[in-house]
Formats: sequence, structure tokens, C-alpha cells
Amino acid sequence: MAATLLKGKDVADALNAKMSADVEALKAKGVTPTLAILRVGERPDDISYEKGAMKRCESVGVAVKNVVLPADVTQDVLMKSVQDLNEDKNVHGVLIFRPLPKHLDEEAVRNALKPEKDIDGITDGSLAGVFTGNGNGYPPCTAQACMEILDYYNIDCKGKRAVVIGRSLVVGKPAAIMLMGKNATVTVCHTKTVDMPSVCRNAEILIVAAGKANAVTKDYLSPGQVVVDVGINMTDEGKLCGDVKFDDAEPIVGAITPVPGGVGTVTTSVLVSHVVEAAKKTL
Amino acid sequence: MAATLLKGKDVADALNAKMSADVEALKAKGVTPTLAILRVGERPDDISYEKGAMKRCESVGVAVKNVVLPADVTQDVLMKSVQDLNEDKNVHGVLIFRPLPKHLDEEAVRNALKPEKDIDGITDGSLAGVFTGNGNGYPPCTAQACMEILDYYNIDCKGKRAVVIGRSLVVGKPAAIMLMGKNATVTVCHTKTVDMPSVCRNAEILIVAAGKANAVTKDYLSPGQVVVDVGINMTDEGKLCGDVKFDDAEPIVGAITPVPGGVGTVTTSVLVSHVVEAAKKTL
Repeated sequence: MAATLLKGKDVADALNAKMSADVEALKAKGVTPTLAILRVGERPDDISYEKGAMKRCESVGVAVKNVVLPADVTQDVLMKSVQDLNEDKNVHGVLIFRPLPKHLDEEAVRNALKPEKDIDGITDGSLAGVFTGNGNGYPPCTAQACMEILDYYNIDCKGKRAVVIGRSLVVGKPAAIMLMGKNATVTVCHTKTVDMPSVCRNAEILIVAAGKANAVTKDYLSPGQVVVDVGINMTDEGKLCGDVKFDDAEPIVGAITPVPGGVGTVTTSVLVSHVVEAAKKTL
Repeated sequence: MAATLLKGKDVADALNAKMSADVEALKAKGVTPTLAILRVGERPDDISYEKGAMKRCESVGVAVKNVVLPADVTQDVLMKSVQDLNEDKNVHGVLIFRPLPKHLDEEAVRNALKPEKDIDGITDGSLAGVFTGNGNGYPPCTAQACMEILDYYNIDCKGKRAVVIGRSLVVGKPAAIMLMGKNATVTVCHTKTVDMPSVCRNAEILIVAAGKANAVTKDYLSPGQVVVDVGINMTDEGKLCGDVKFDDAEPIVGAITPVPGGVGTVTTSVLVSHVVEAAKKTL
């Protein structure tokens, strides 16, 4: 029996349709939701993500303000940029690419950003918002993208055994807290977990953010599972693949997100939806 | 085989001895660590906890400044009190009793407190500190008391299956994150968990913060487990008991904290240790 494919595109399309309507309503009230993208240097990964975000913004009517600083920018100049974006009433959300070059104090930059403009969930205010569920700031986009996929495909988490592989602040921890908020019984695995395959086999919902190609093989999987693969890796042959060995998983599990075309496809839509939400809050 | 008793007193004694030495060193430098206790109204629970905290402070040489406001205090007056304590250079930590009377905006009060004086882990800054592990603020004292017990008794969490019952911000969630920091594989159970007994039986370390007397019975337990019982409940006969049915657990598990005399005994020592740490940071 082949697994149901949880395609990101359908989820993103639904988010985009909702956003487009919201943007239209905002524009009718004289507000154009605007994302500022602050990039230091010219890392290809950053530029590629930036292109995707700009395209997504354009498609739903969100404006973009690009701020590009040289890789050798000083802390003072960078902090001043963040401050300017904080104060700019026409900017509703700010995306700051990280990691920053090593000579910069990333923690200071991160927390200089106003939580209400922190649409990428990088400030302490946003992370406390995820942890406490108080609604402050915005959750990290990738973690929320996993939840959007579960929601869109009507996967009820209540009382389900959910396992998250990975404990990063960008995916694992916030995804775990959000799954608890959905009333799942959540287990977090990581590199120090003993017998991870048996822990994962026991999951009804498995979120994989291991950060390693093909980390999840047949012995981690069991029939009926819903698998959300957060990984984006490049094979030696230059092909994109996830953290789950797809050919192992597909005949066993109940449903799985493909890579490419899964979580990654939803992430930029979530990012842009945060900009729209932030703009709504200024009304 | 009877379980080893993980007595809180031994843990508290060790913390107190360390604190006393630290306080002496601080006093030699002209700093007297000082805890401000801000209480609104006359709730018996608050007064009882206050007495315990004051006694502990006195025993290790930490000064206490009591601020008591009437139960019908206005938000403005309360906020002004918090502000004064923030600005008072002779106050290193502030304990604010909650819940506050219903006419007050607790969230505003909570976040008015400076994170560096938040020795009870109630601000977003402290909670983000727990979540991110960035060292800002202080973790909620009860959650940390559980960790102090594990540390004192040399219970290595690395790679162990730890289960936390309860997902509150005061115990369950911070304890789960702190256990992840100790490299345990952590599962969080709660009221919506299906078949909680089998999830708990599978734990090597079980932290119980269910908030219900005798919630954990024989069928939740298995040989060799380390059980930390956070509950403090009053039986119909007026006796204190935990969330774990002790008589069920004691013959089965490997080690268990008693109630009374377990986690609760350590909590005020942790609170006061945070005041000492906060005072050290002002040097």
C-alpha cells in the first residue's frame, strides 16, 4: 500500500489564497504589508531563500524592501539598520538571514529586533511566545509549516503519540511545544537518544528534523504513521532529498511529505503570512 | 526491594552550604544579597510559602525586604511597586506571588519585572532563557528543584527515557526542556494522553506534576525507575501527599522522592540560590 503524499503545494496554495484576500482588504484601508529582508553578505543559500520569499511576496501583493550589507559590516552599522527597520512604520516584518558572519554578535542583533516585527521567530519574545502560548511574536516558520501541513490534511493530533527528531530552536523544540498545544503526547529524540528506531516506530506522527540525508530508514517506521520530513539535503548526484529515506518509507507509512515539494514549499508562505498578520495588527 | 529515598533535605543542605559560602564572600565585598517579596493580599498559601522563604534566607544570610499590598490594590500602584523594586540597587531578586487577584493584569505585572531580578522564572525573558538555554533570567524554581535532585543523587540523564506528566509553564514544560538539555529522550504526558500508564511504565526517569493526589498508581510504574514527585496535596485526613501513590511505588521503583520532604524542600533553596546568583552578577 502506497502512502498518501502530503504535498506542500496544496497547503501553500490555501495559505496564499487566504493571504491574497487579506492583503486586498489591507490595501483597501491604505496599508501595504511590507517585508524587509536584511541580508549581510552574499551567501548563495541566503540569496536563494530571498528569491523564493520575494516571489511569494509578489504573488500575494506583499511589498519587499531589501537591505543588503557587506559581509564585513560593523556591528554598529548592522544594529543601526535593525533599529531603522524597527522604527519604519511602513515595514511590518523583518527577515534577518543567519548565521551572521562570525565577527558579529548575533544574539545582540536578534534581540534588537522588535518582537512584533519578528516574523521569522528569532527573538526571545517570539520564542517565549511559542513556549508560553501567549501569542507574542511569531513561531519559527519551518516549525509552523509542519503544523500547517497537519492542519490542512486534517490530521488530528489529540492524544496521538508524536515524535520529533531534533531539538533545535528553529524546528525541533518549537514543533514539540506546538504539538503539545495540539494535545499530542510528544517525545523529542536527538543524537543522544538510545535506540531511536524503536522510539520512532512507536510514533503515530513523526516529525523529522535530523539534518542528515537518509537518517530515517525502514527500522524507524511503522504502518499508518504520518511522517513530516523537514530535511533538505543534496545527494552526491546533486539531487535534493529529505532526512527520511523516501523509498523505504513510502511502502510502509500512511502518509508522508515529499522532498522537494513538502515542508519547504510551505515555509515561505508561512513567513509571508506572518507579515500579513503583523500588518493587520497595526490597523 | 524497597526504593531508595531521594530526600530533599540532603539536596537543600548541599545548596545551602554552597550559598552560605557565596553570601559570605559577597558580604566581604560589601554586597548583601537581598530578596524582595511582593505579596498582594493575605492568601494563606502565600503567607506559608513566604515564611519558608524568609526562614531559608535568614539561615544563609540573605536579607529580605517585604512589600505587602492590600488585596484591592490598583494596577497602577502595583506596577509602581514593581518598578521601584526594579530600580532598587539593594534588591537583587523579586518574588511576586501569583495568582494575583482577578482585577489585576497579571501578564503586565509579570513582564514589568526585570528578567535579571526574576529569580522565580515568571517573565518571558526567563522562560525564553529556559527554552533557548541562553542563560538569561532564571528557570522556574520547582522545575529546577527536580534537576537539582537528579544532579545531587548522580542520576545520569544522558540517553535515558524521561517522561514528564504535566505541561504547565511552572513545572512540566521547563522540566522537559531542562531534561532535553541533560540529553534525556523526553516525553511529555498530559490529560489528553492516551494510555498514560504504558507511556509512564516505559520511562527510566519519571517526573510527576499531575496536580492530583494519587494520580500515579502501580500500573504507571516499573522496576528501576527514578520517580520525582512534584505534587503537594492534602488528603481528606489532613495529611500531605504527592501525586504518586507512594505505597504503590515504593516496592516497585528504584528511587523516589518522598512527599513531604522531597521536591518542596528543595524549591525555596533554589529560589534563594537565584538571589545569590543575581547578586553575584551585579559585582
